[in-house]
Amino acid sequence: MAEIRFASRAASIGKRPPPIVALDAIKLGGGNAFPDLLPDVSAEAADVATLFRTEALQYGPLYGLPELRQEIVRFLTEDGVTANVDNILILNGAKQALDLLLRTLVDKGDAVVVSRPTYLSALSIIRNHEASIIEIDSDEGGMKVDELEAKLRRLRAEGGKLPKLLFEVPDFHNPTGITLSEERRRTLVRLAEEFDFFILEDDPYRRLRFSGEAVAPIKSFDTNGRVIGAGTFSKILAPGIRVGWANGDPAIIGRMAALKSEGGCCPLTQRIVLDLLRSGRIAHHIAELTPVMKRHRDAMTDAFRLHLPEARFRAPDGGYFLWVELPDGVDANAVTLEAERDGVIVFPGQLSFASAPPVNFIRLAFSYCGPDQIERGVRKLCAVVRRQQTDVSAQPGQAEALSLAGRHYD
Amino acid sequence: MAEIRFASRAASIGKRPPPIVALDAIKLGGGNAFPDLLPDVSAEAADVATLFRTEALQYGPLYGLPELRQEIVRFLTEDGVTANVDNILILNGAKQALDLLLRTLVDKGDAVVVSRPTYLSALSIIRNHEASIIEIDSDEGGMKVDELEAKLRRLRAEGGKLPKLLFEVPDFHNPTGITLSEERRRTLVRLAEEFDFFILEDDPYRRLRFSGEAVAPIKSFDTNGRVIGAGTFSKILAPGIRVGWANGDPAIIGRMAALKSEGGCCPLTQRIVLDLLRSGRIAHHIAELTPVMKRHRDAMTDAFRLHLPEARFRAPDGGYFLWVELPDGVDANAVTLEAERDGVIVFPGQLSFASAPPVNFIRLAFSYCGPDQIERGVRKLCAVVRRQQTDVSAQPGQAEALSLAGRHYD
Repeated sequence: MAEIRFASRAASIGKRPPPIVALDAIKLGGGNAFPDLLPDVSAEAADVATLFRTEALQYGPLYGLPELRQEIVRFLTEDGVTANVDNILILNGAKQALDLLLRTLVDKGDAVVVSRPTYLSALSIIRNHEASIIEIDSDEGGMKVDELEAKLRRLRAEGGKLPKLLFEVPDFHNPTGITLSEERRRTLVRLAEEFDFFILEDDPYRRLRFSGEAVAPIKSFDTNGRVIGAGTFSKILAPGIRVGWANGDPAIIGRMAALKSEGGCCPLTQRIVLDLLRSGRIAHHIAELTPVMKRHRDAMTDAFRLHLPEARFRAPDGGYFLWVELPDGVDANAVTLEAERDGVIVFPGQLSFASAPPVNFIRLAFSYCGPDQIERGVRKLCAVVRRQQTDVSAQPGQAEALSLAGRHYD
Repeated sequence: MAEIRFASRAASIGKRPPPIVALDAIKLGGGNAFPDLLPDVSAEAADVATLFRTEALQYGPLYGLPELRQEIVRFLTEDGVTANVDNILILNGAKQALDLLLRTLVDKGDAVVVSRPTYLSALSIIRNHEASIIEIDSDEGGMKVDELEAKLRRLRAEGGKLPKLLFEVPDFHNPTGITLSEERRRTLVRLAEEFDFFILEDDPYRRLRFSGEAVAPIKSFDTNGRVIGAGTFSKILAPGIRVGWANGDPAIIGRMAALKSEGGCCPLTQRIVLDLLRSGRIAHHIAELTPVMKRHRDAMTDAFRLHLPEARFRAPDGGYFLWVELPDGVDANAVTLEAERDGVIVFPGQLSFASAPPVNFIRLAFSYCGPDQIERGVRKLCAVVRRQQTDVSAQPGQAEALSLAGRHYD
């Protein structure tokens, strides 16, 4: 076959299938669920398949099961978010909310704001829409909204392209773990109003708080439909169940639904989630999971303090991730590749930057492995760093760096 | 809020949620499954949730479960299609294959070929990609490939825009029910080679044959990766399970996977399908379902012959749909709206045309309702037609026609 005439968005992606990770690898890369605490939903699954057979196996409603949408409204109320059923669209996870909102709002070349660094899969999805990306630096308080405001004013003054969307993970940010302050959240809503853009508040980790006080969702400060909330049961129940949602103005939600080409989500898994919400098992699961995730985090931060005290990080108050700045001069891409050969999977920090990535960050998830594996994994990782510090030949060649960038990461 | 600056693809869609259909309506519109034959999968669901807990509830592989992909390879072999695991991408149904293939191949303004008429949801999905649509007329043998060839030669001679993709439902076409001949299938592949386009072969109904001989899939004539097959368990098991697939060249499949923003499909439902495939229950279900669908079809064609003998249709040899040409002068849009008020849901034929729709076609699905309901529904529908033939005031106003076009249909 002659060269394939791909769409421009597709030409340079997906050239290789995802790498096969060694079965015995210590996986500190993706934000997977801790297997020991994945719930047993066999009773709910059997009940739903029997009692709701004709609902669970038939095409589901385009917006999702009304009862589940109602339960999500109630769930959001606990966070101080007011919604009604018409605001809720059931999705196959929160990433689909970003995808559909981009389709709804963003034409090729339109601008989207992200924090620097940001969620690596969000970057892929935004790039797949051929949006231009505006990165706003972060500090210890998260996205620097003052810098955003200055940038927006400058763009307006110069007649530049103002953004149509801002993407942010405000609670236990991916990758930095930072929670955005209430003041900055209010500023984001004010700027969205003034500069006519929308905010996607991607909030998968909110309920997994180890310490400190919760900050009200950005959505709770939104009086004018400027914020679309994205949520998921992936991090608080089970990622494999593939049930998430978007919460937004019906004019936005209606477009997202119409652009959801595969139709309504699986009613079988929706009904299982609904059962688990109503019975209180999800609340119970969160209560059980949170202290376990805290122990995982402690195991990871302790291991870094022991094995690489000069590594810089901020222990997050919740969520799944630790964002580590390796000592100056260490190349995180080389470390990532070398660690993989040693059986430890981490993600190079460069994937979380839309442009000009610094080379010495890595993202680790403490969600999937237990404390012992985390200690062993971090110890091996730190040994790789030590070797690299004494061996400049360990720097990756161009080919290796490219191979890293071409992979799929979750 | 000021007017929302939607992306151009989104401005005019999804303005209203789907209409609420009366609970006791006779539903001859969407291609839903016959509820009485939806399988009891409670044992499989419970088994999977227990025995495969950590697989079923964890993030699944981006391409789908390797074992399911292998079973689909085997399934395709029964149709004379040669594939291997690397060709198979698991999706949330077959519609997602069209969506992802459009993203992979089609930039805004690129041309896509469809038959006239064609699957109404495919039209929506193609429009959502802002492709230009080339319609090729159909006759009693399906898409007129001679006309396609002439059109392509003319376009090339005139320097016009050649298509990048052709969409077709070759077996028991939606909506016409026609099966494309082997000769026409071979011609499509030859034209795809000569004019450098791809073919999406959407084949949900293939196994539901009531009579006549199966024709080998278009994909079986493809030696050069020009054809992407799309399949689903929606019509041969249960639509709610949301498991389908694409079968194509790895270079295409890899792009489709990279553009599948929500990641891997639900492993719980995949594993249930895998169990049902391996145990032979899906084959058994097809064997049980096919004669039932034939009885439904017979009930529908008998009812039309009795109540509206001048209606023209071709009784399909399989599948889910009957495509009916109403008597000259009857407005199918008005009939559809009036029938809905009388408690019978059918789809106006205009939705299956990309442009300049004729006004006197309707699409009916005989899948969902049993024979008695089908008889009653067609009788009421035909009474509406009779009333309209004697009452010109029943023609729909512009507003009603628009309201019809703005709805969601599956």
